[in-house]
Amino acid sequence: MEKKKIVTGFSRLSKDEKLELISAVQKSPQAFVAEMKSYWHSDDQTQLKFDEFSENTISNYFIPYGVAPNFVIDNKNYIIPMVIEESSVIAAASNAAKWWASRGGFHTEIVSTKKIGQVHFIWHGDNSKLKALFPLLKTRLFEGTAEITSNMENRGGGILDIELVDMRHEIADYYQLKAEFETVDSMGANFINSCLEEFAQITRTFFLQEPGFVNGEKDCRIIMSILSNYTPDCVVKSWVECDIEELGTIDDDMSAEEFVWKFDHAVKIAQIDPHRATTHNKGIFNGIDAVALATGNDFRAIEACGHTYASRSGKYSSLTELELKDGKFKYTLTVPLAMGTVGGLTSLHPMAKRSLEMLNNPTAHNLMRITATVGLANNFGALKSLVTKGIQKGHMKMHLMNILNQMEATDKEKKHAIEHFTEHKVSFRAVQEYLNSVRVEVLK
Amino acid sequence: MEKKKIVTGFSRLSKDEKLELISAVQKSPQAFVAEMKSYWHSDDQTQLKFDEFSENTISNYFIPYGVAPNFVIDNKNYIIPMVIEESSVIAAASNAAKWWASRGGFHTEIVSTKKIGQVHFIWHGDNSKLKALFPLLKTRLFEGTAEITSNMENRGGGILDIELVDMRHEIADYYQLKAEFETVDSMGANFINSCLEEFAQITRTFFLQEPGFVNGEKDCRIIMSILSNYTPDCVVKSWVECDIEELGTIDDDMSAEEFVWKFDHAVKIAQIDPHRATTHNKGIFNGIDAVALATGNDFRAIEACGHTYASRSGKYSSLTELELKDGKFKYTLTVPLAMGTVGGLTSLHPMAKRSLEMLNNPTAHNLMRITATVGLANNFGALKSLVTKGIQKGHMKMHLMNILNQMEATDKEKKHAIEHFTEHKVSFRAVQEYLNSVRVEVLK
Repeated sequence: MEKKKIVTGFSRLSKDEKLELISAVQKSPQAFVAEMKSYWHSDDQTQLKFDEFSENTISNYFIPYGVAPNFVIDNKNYIIPMVIEESSVIAAASNAAKWWASRGGFHTEIVSTKKIGQVHFIWHGDNSKLKALFPLLKTRLFEGTAEITSNMENRGGGILDIELVDMRHEIADYYQLKAEFETVDSMGANFINSCLEEFAQITRTFFLQEPGFVNGEKDCRIIMSILSNYTPDCVVKSWVECDIEELGTIDDDMSAEEFVWKFDHAVKIAQIDPHRATTHNKGIFNGIDAVALATGNDFRAIEACGHTYASRSGKYSSLTELELKDGKFKYTLTVPLAMGTVGGLTSLHPMAKRSLEMLNNPTAHNLMRITATVGLANNFGALKSLVTKGIQKGHMKMHLMNILNQMEATDKEKKHAIEHFTEHKVSFRAVQEYLNSVRVEVLK
Repeated sequence: MEKKKIVTGFSRLSKDEKLELISAVQKSPQAFVAEMKSYWHSDDQTQLKFDEFSENTISNYFIPYGVAPNFVIDNKNYIIPMVIEESSVIAAASNAAKWWASRGGFHTEIVSTKKIGQVHFIWHGDNSKLKALFPLLKTRLFEGTAEITSNMENRGGGILDIELVDMRHEIADYYQLKAEFETVDSMGANFINSCLEEFAQITRTFFLQEPGFVNGEKDCRIIMSILSNYTPDCVVKSWVECDIEELGTIDDDMSAEEFVWKFDHAVKIAQIDPHRATTHNKGIFNGIDAVALATGNDFRAIEACGHTYASRSGKYSSLTELELKDGKFKYTLTVPLAMGTVGGLTSLHPMAKRSLEMLNNPTAHNLMRITATVGLANNFGALKSLVTKGIQKGHMKMHLMNILNQMEATDKEKKHAIEHFTEHKVSFRAVQEYLNSVRVEVLK
């Protein structure tokens, strides 16, 4: 696109006007508009919902919606909806689920469910006075947010505690109000942020009006009021357990001892090497994000939190650990997951609603259990492949199908190509050359 | 769903059979099937592509596809495709883009573009012998992968270097082959993994056949061979710069000095407090992931890498920094981004292809520049809101629209509700009560 002047008033245009304006700078404007429209939902009211989730929307982006059957979690069976564009993720989750289903399935535990919000402020004055008056401020904060919290309290949640944190060793005159929240089945971002912005108003007024504060002490400068996506106290565990000898069935070419020895090393490596830990955890989030997306949860929040948690020791490390004791293999994922099953997109996105129905309309706790379990299943599946046959075999088969589709191979060509490439290395060029040679044969 | 027995052969069922099987355990099987099918693309061939991206697919998940106009990056104008379900993200990116467009826009720099892969192995033997023979092994590794790398070399990439890393201080007998790759315009995962699995074969053979190694030394046990998603040497910078006094125009109620003082504090807080850093960086990835999704890149890989990078000092910290010098405001994001514009889904997903066209078919380098810039724009927009009006005002308006849509409010009801809630706090209950009262009025 050539350099051109700034567009004004774009957000106020209708969807069709936006589409027209953007298509004008595309190579084939009509084809562009037709393609964008081909992804609209056929029902106008349904499409309108998607249009209004975010801004300047002109179409929908499709991500495959798949299912992983055979998950047994805390003795219940689940078919799990997963939204993911990457090949092998759903297959790996399904395979791990099936293998573990006949070995007791997955077990889970909610460790804690507290969420965190902060009001960051700068205040210059007598610290002992602030400390002495904080209990009074705290009362005012609870009282002043009673209207916002009443509904949440009826559902069993609310503000759990508010703490004054002295941060002056880091930044001059810097303090935090650090509040803990229980948001029950909602992710709670709006609730927490509404409370915090109210806290900020109340705090400002408190310093101004409280007679104990004099002169400059009356001036509390709020920097910002915002929830923290880092929730190290909103944590779930998921684990699998079996006799070591049972792992002899996991790969035809490997004994239980050899598999476990390799698996154990793979886990230890992910614990000590950040280069490996990143990829190890990435595989966990393949599964977690797929469920988060399918159920209308915010995967950016989940990712940010999980990775910060993985670095909490001072060295970025694995989120899983293996215990080998008394002939038992026990593999555990511990991960913070702030998820919701009411509010936000969970009930607005029609497919998210269906996903939650598919999971038997879980509480947020149960969704945490399910989601962590899928993360563990994907990690187990990835490690299993890595320490046995390697991942390229499976990946390459999927990759081959994608290349064949792009080259518009016929069903017959696909069938022959799959046979051919069981013996040959898949690459874009190799598939192209193969198809060309086959097609030339046909023309002869 | 009640406890039931394991489903076998699910993956081999046709899409319709899968749908039928899953619908049978839903509350309204027919409605379930109809809804899933309503999200299929009307063109069978197009739908087939989506079906084959991953496994057990039964439908498509819609995420709004929107655009952020007015991005000026390195003196070129862009309309940026963004795929995101969260409200306010595209609006924030667009607003920041427009504000900076008339102040020189965004500037970027590719710091480096190396990618990393590792072969992890256990070997017990004379370390000095291994060190002495490593140059020979290295030659064999390059020679043995010549067939795989030739195509990549023609495009200007390939294997840059292979290093032997002694990790015995961490785990007994543990070594790595750590290789650096340049993958040009592809993300390169398949290429790197194919090289690494070949390295593993060659290495195993090398220990076995090289006469220098005796007895147990002939036995090299490969744990796994896999790329690292952590690429601290595949990094891009994006920054904005203006005179401090210009920031007086950014908010009606705030002077340039006050805004910059607050903004500076907000950035410093994100540098020293992991609770705040997580959320600060989450806002960056709102923008980055939206572009990654739109262009068919893997956001889980990008997230894992970026957050590990944010923790590299030993304390999870902000990815941005502010420089205030000589009356200038310079705000910079530094982020690792391993992205591709060829291969993978980039050309297979029809919408990803359109997104890349919209960005003028960028090289991977240019896509890194663009993507980092959107991340910076979103972070700037978020901080701007946080230190001025707070985020709830904007969020709550979007939230209100979503609640109104869910309650199937008419256009007239929406219009009145928007007016009403400029003066009242938005909550699900408040909107419900408001709508009920309005609707009762009408019935009277």
